[in-house]
Amino acid sequence: LDCLECIAAQALRAARVATDDPELQRRILIETLKQIPDLDIRKSPAELSLVTYDLAASLTGNYDPYKGLKFAQNEIALELEPELRDMVRDSDDPLATALHLAAAGNIIDLGVHQAEHIDIRAAIRQVMRERFTIDHTEALRRSLAKAKDLVYVLDNAGEIVFDKIAIEELLQHTAVTAVVKAAPIINDVLMEDAVQVELTEVCEVIDNGGAFVGSPLDLVPASFIERLKRADMIVGKGQGNYETLDDFPGDVFLILRAKCEVVARHMGVQLGQVGLISTRCRRAEVARTAAETP
Amino acid sequence: LDCLECIAAQALRAARVATDDPELQRRILIETLKQIPDLDIRKSPAELSLVTYDLAASLTGNYDPYKGLKFAQNEIALELEPELRDMVRDSDDPLATALHLAAAGNIIDLGVHQAEHIDIRAAIRQVMRERFTIDHTEALRRSLAKAKDLVYVLDNAGEIVFDKIAIEELLQHTAVTAVVKAAPIINDVLMEDAVQVELTEVCEVIDNGGAFVGSPLDLVPASFIERLKRADMIVGKGQGNYETLDDFPGDVFLILRAKCEVVARHMGVQLGQVGLISTRCRRAEVARTAAETP
Repeated sequence: LDCLECIAAQALRAARVATDDPELQRRILIETLKQIPDLDIRKSPAELSLVTYDLAASLTGNYDPYKGLKFAQNEIALELEPELRDMVRDSDDPLATALHLAAAGNIIDLGVHQAEHIDIRAAIRQVMRERFTIDHTEALRRSLAKAKDLVYVLDNAGEIVFDKIAIEELLQHTAVTAVVKAAPIINDVLMEDAVQVELTEVCEVIDNGGAFVGSPLDLVPASFIERLKRADMIVGKGQGNYETLDDFPGDVFLILRAKCEVVARHMGVQLGQVGLISTRCRRAEVARTAAETP
Repeated sequence: LDCLECIAAQALRAARVATDDPELQRRILIETLKQIPDLDIRKSPAELSLVTYDLAASLTGNYDPYKGLKFAQNEIALELEPELRDMVRDSDDPLATALHLAAAGNIIDLGVHQAEHIDIRAAIRQVMRERFTIDHTEALRRSLAKAKDLVYVLDNAGEIVFDKIAIEELLQHTAVTAVVKAAPIINDVLMEDAVQVELTEVCEVIDNGGAFVGSPLDLVPASFIERLKRADMIVGKGQGNYETLDDFPGDVFLILRAKCEVVARHMGVQLGQVGLISTRCRRAEVARTAAETP
């Protein structure tokens, strides 16, 4: 129910980004509200939220309202790139630091609203001081020691620069294929973002075949599912991928910051905390707890 | 549009207070969402929000879900009463201090959620340190010097104890009639609250004829409108009365804390700031500004 109410809130935000016309904004909100009662709440919040972004796009004809913001987010993150790279290079544990930075990058869409570089730096420093509340880094290391093929499912613009640095570390152990969206959805990265931050110079970049929040398994094309199945391990970034890849039957690692109460509660952390979660480890923990319960 | 989205958020909160049954909660939310597209957005947010409280009541049969909370809020405020009275008595300007306390009381529904007495004390101290951002206290004094009949439109439980102390100061200048709701609506005061905090020992207490947020002039009975018209001055508490009494053609004073961005913007203050607003002074200011604009 929180997610249904959140879709109404997302509708208003999406409407205001997509158009300055109050009448169009009203229609996006109202049409979204009309569709909410018919949504199948067994689906993931990421998938359910698509209704409002589709409406905002079709009613305004503005299919990429976040385009300018995404470009700016990437530029800001690129300015930080040398510092981020220094942090990894100077670290005792470059892989862990790079993964932690990738999680820190997941907060960038908050800070960038006022385009204050200094705030982003402070926010990142703050996150770097915290540890992963759920930390399956060692499981990731074990998988990485055996993996030959890793699929890294990207999330937002700006954040992608942090991901690039993490991918460079991962590349020392395995081949990596990064995944962008095929078409615009909120501030998620497209191929043009991968080109802008030169991720395309670092690893193979493919798209997931659609304009989805996260990677909803019943919406992405079969060819993308096949690609995920072929991978030895998968890294998914952000809440959207947390919500859609958590039941995928592979060796999945989800790196995210809990940005809403519903996901925080599901993760078992506080709002704002970060996690690097192996879905296999978590399933094993759940099974163990169930076995111990008389 | 913010108000329409807020009604969805209020629906979920109201549903959770009214019932523990997730299916009933879902119906309250969904039925509210279905009605939002047909709302007349020229009406006040206070009036528009009634749809969800009416649905919560009729779908659950629970017509006073905040009853226990209201009782507790009153008890907590009654414990503070001696301190509040000391603050007024020891003040250089007892009337101004009492009115300021009445505004401070308008935050009590925030603090009381965890029923932490100490938090409420801290919150009140915080508000008392701030000045009214909009301060028409001198206009209120001028009206009070001539008034024989003041109608004081109450807002929430708990807060009513603060109002009682303000009313005692006002009574040194004029007769006062306090107004409660005739039937339960959120945590607004009813006659039983006026009895619980012994406001009925201090002044005449009447009801407004309905279960409304604020005092929507097209919904309250004609007899209540007549009562407002007979008054030499009116004091209205909280956002609901700010939204519904601001155009009433009398000598109206509105005391409130801006609890949402929409009302804060309309008041011309920051979120959380408090105001004591004479609607006559404000209309004169607006007319003056308009006259000065070439």
